[in-house]
Amino acid sequence: MDNNNNDLIAPITPEEVFAAHRGGKLSIKSSRPLTSKRDLSIAYSPGVAEACLAIKEDPARARELTGISRTVAVVSDGSAVLGLGNIGPHAALPVMEGKCQLFTTFADLNAIPIVLDVHSADEIVAAVTAIAPSVGAINLEDIAAPICFEVEQRLEESLNIPVFHDDQHGTAVVVTAGLANACRVTGRNLEDLRVVVSGAGAAGVACTRMLLESGVKDIVVLDSRGIVSQGRENLNPVKEKIAEVTNPRGLTGGPAEAFTGADAFIGVSRGHVGEELLQLMAPEPILFSLANPDPEIPVELANKYGSVVATGRSDLPNQVNNVLAFPGIFAGALAAGATHIAPAMKLAASKAIAACVGDDLAADFIMPSPLDPKVEPAVSKAVQEAARKEG
Amino acid sequence: MDNNNNDLIAPITPEEVFAAHRGGKLSIKSSRPLTSKRDLSIAYSPGVAEACLAIKEDPARARELTGISRTVAVVSDGSAVLGLGNIGPHAALPVMEGKCQLFTTFADLNAIPIVLDVHSADEIVAAVTAIAPSVGAINLEDIAAPICFEVEQRLEESLNIPVFHDDQHGTAVVVTAGLANACRVTGRNLEDLRVVVSGAGAAGVACTRMLLESGVKDIVVLDSRGIVSQGRENLNPVKEKIAEVTNPRGLTGGPAEAFTGADAFIGVSRGHVGEELLQLMAPEPILFSLANPDPEIPVELANKYGSVVATGRSDLPNQVNNVLAFPGIFAGALAAGATHIAPAMKLAASKAIAACVGDDLAADFIMPSPLDPKVEPAVSKAVQEAARKEG
Repeated sequence: MDNNNNDLIAPITPEEVFAAHRGGKLSIKSSRPLTSKRDLSIAYSPGVAEACLAIKEDPARARELTGISRTVAVVSDGSAVLGLGNIGPHAALPVMEGKCQLFTTFADLNAIPIVLDVHSADEIVAAVTAIAPSVGAINLEDIAAPICFEVEQRLEESLNIPVFHDDQHGTAVVVTAGLANACRVTGRNLEDLRVVVSGAGAAGVACTRMLLESGVKDIVVLDSRGIVSQGRENLNPVKEKIAEVTNPRGLTGGPAEAFTGADAFIGVSRGHVGEELLQLMAPEPILFSLANPDPEIPVELANKYGSVVATGRSDLPNQVNNVLAFPGIFAGALAAGATHIAPAMKLAASKAIAACVGDDLAADFIMPSPLDPKVEPAVSKAVQEAARKEG
Repeated sequence: MDNNNNDLIAPITPEEVFAAHRGGKLSIKSSRPLTSKRDLSIAYSPGVAEACLAIKEDPARARELTGISRTVAVVSDGSAVLGLGNIGPHAALPVMEGKCQLFTTFADLNAIPIVLDVHSADEIVAAVTAIAPSVGAINLEDIAAPICFEVEQRLEESLNIPVFHDDQHGTAVVVTAGLANACRVTGRNLEDLRVVVSGAGAAGVACTRMLLESGVKDIVVLDSRGIVSQGRENLNPVKEKIAEVTNPRGLTGGPAEAFTGADAFIGVSRGHVGEELLQLMAPEPILFSLANPDPEIPVELANKYGSVVATGRSDLPNQVNNVLAFPGIFAGALAAGATHIAPAMKLAASKAIAACVGDDLAADFIMPSPLDPKVEPAVSKAVQEAARKEG
């Protein structure tokens, strides 16, 4: 695999993208050749009845005699796709096919792209519940906040297979790994860090929760209306909970109040952060500006102020890329037969990702390459161990 | 491919079936390798956005820039699986995976097995409608009558992609092809035939309708309570309509009345037909006893009375196997961009299948082999032509 960025020097053209999408990006084949009547009679009627009856008698055998234990549904209603917003199910399908390509390429899992023509929490939950027996796990993708929170929570509670909203937890796992390595490289402790999280959507909320679980004590969350603080008017229930567990210094106001003295910035919004805010931060801050394709902090400015700079871009160092997390997390959860992806499994994944940089850890190498073949097996192993400890 | 039956002499063992099912029967891969950051940036973010925006701008481009124009969902609620009855979604999954194997093996289509944890017509329609943008066509499978009729009709009316209940129409297409060839080989005309259809479920109703469309004028339908006739009590709405368009001699009663003087028997039930009934038929009748694995008419008896004998079994001559129909029907409909599978498309498929036996037509060769590689392209071509005539 090509681990350098030289191949990204030439800009990607629309023609190149269209050529790679023509006819779709996935191929579904029979695992075994069917070339004789005997093959047909085993794979289909009448032989298949033996497998059906075995599962009917012992439902647990579905994991053995069907593909579910290595199959993930990648489900979206197309309501919050990349930075494109609510583009609907058909326009979202290329992203879901792409995600499925990543699942098969990095974790050798079967992944099925499912785009939904429904958008309310009730309807999404009903559709996913209806198709759930077809797969072993559900990857929710690009569903707008705050509906995504309700959808995930209700499916988590009602289904007995893993449900994982990657925009929330995949991002949180990778950000947490990156921030832990950024602390290591700058001689800081997560526990002592003052962190500003910009964005209280799917990614911002999940990053905040996971950083708290990882030991960070002082997080201030910003949304488009300023600091998310207790007592602020018109907070939705998710933000109300975030206000309760963050902002220990009881700040109110906007970006200036939040940035003052902060050691780290985690941007998962579409906002813009200018020099005047960076000047308010503690010296040599850690700057993760993850908005794609345009980072919240212009690249030159981030490099001028930051001791460690990470973005979502594949052409820059320290790419925070969910592909480091979700293939191994799903592979591990499925291999362990887990019914949920518990917080301990996510933390284990995060630590495994951070550890993959090994002795190469440096300010411009806090994240492993998305193409590093060590990552998925390491994450999968860590997740399996954590799942087995959970029981 | 092996076109003879020698490979079926040894019985299929459960161990052999389990070995062929372990880990599932389908493999989903990326159509293109992803080995560089450039590959990732084209297949996924940021490049993929170009494809998303193109589809958002012109929804018709989803057929070009995603896999939908070669992807079929094979959908079942597991309520009427093979001869096993209502075994539920997980136990039905091996059949749906097998069907998907047939789609990819015989028509090079992507097929996705979807088993549903819901069983009412409303819920099945809602679930299929929700996921419909993910695929280019819907193959309904093993859904119990009479719910299957309502589900298909409602989806046909509301979706603008082909919806095809294979247990109904696939069977009807192949039976009609076989009966046409059986007439040819015995010097009969479909128009003059007296036909008994045993079974008024999904297959029986669809066979009856298609035989009428093909020119058969005298069909008597039997269900578990006797002849389906106008005025009989407690007929469901589907059977009421069948009673209106069949039984031109106004028969009432049971099997004896139906079989008397009949030229052809089409068994798509789980009933049993004994010698006393065969003796009532016209001389040298055509006998299709398609129940699987045990034909309605014991094989020796069928061979003693019938001029042409067909079954659903792969180890006997004249196997009536839906795999002759559905791969080519879906491939043709998708290639033509058809939004429905119209009656003319089914008739074209039926004629193409019948024509595939060519000069080899004989009493023990009215159906092409399910492994005959000529069949799918011939059916697809005929269906495309019919679709284009329909407009």
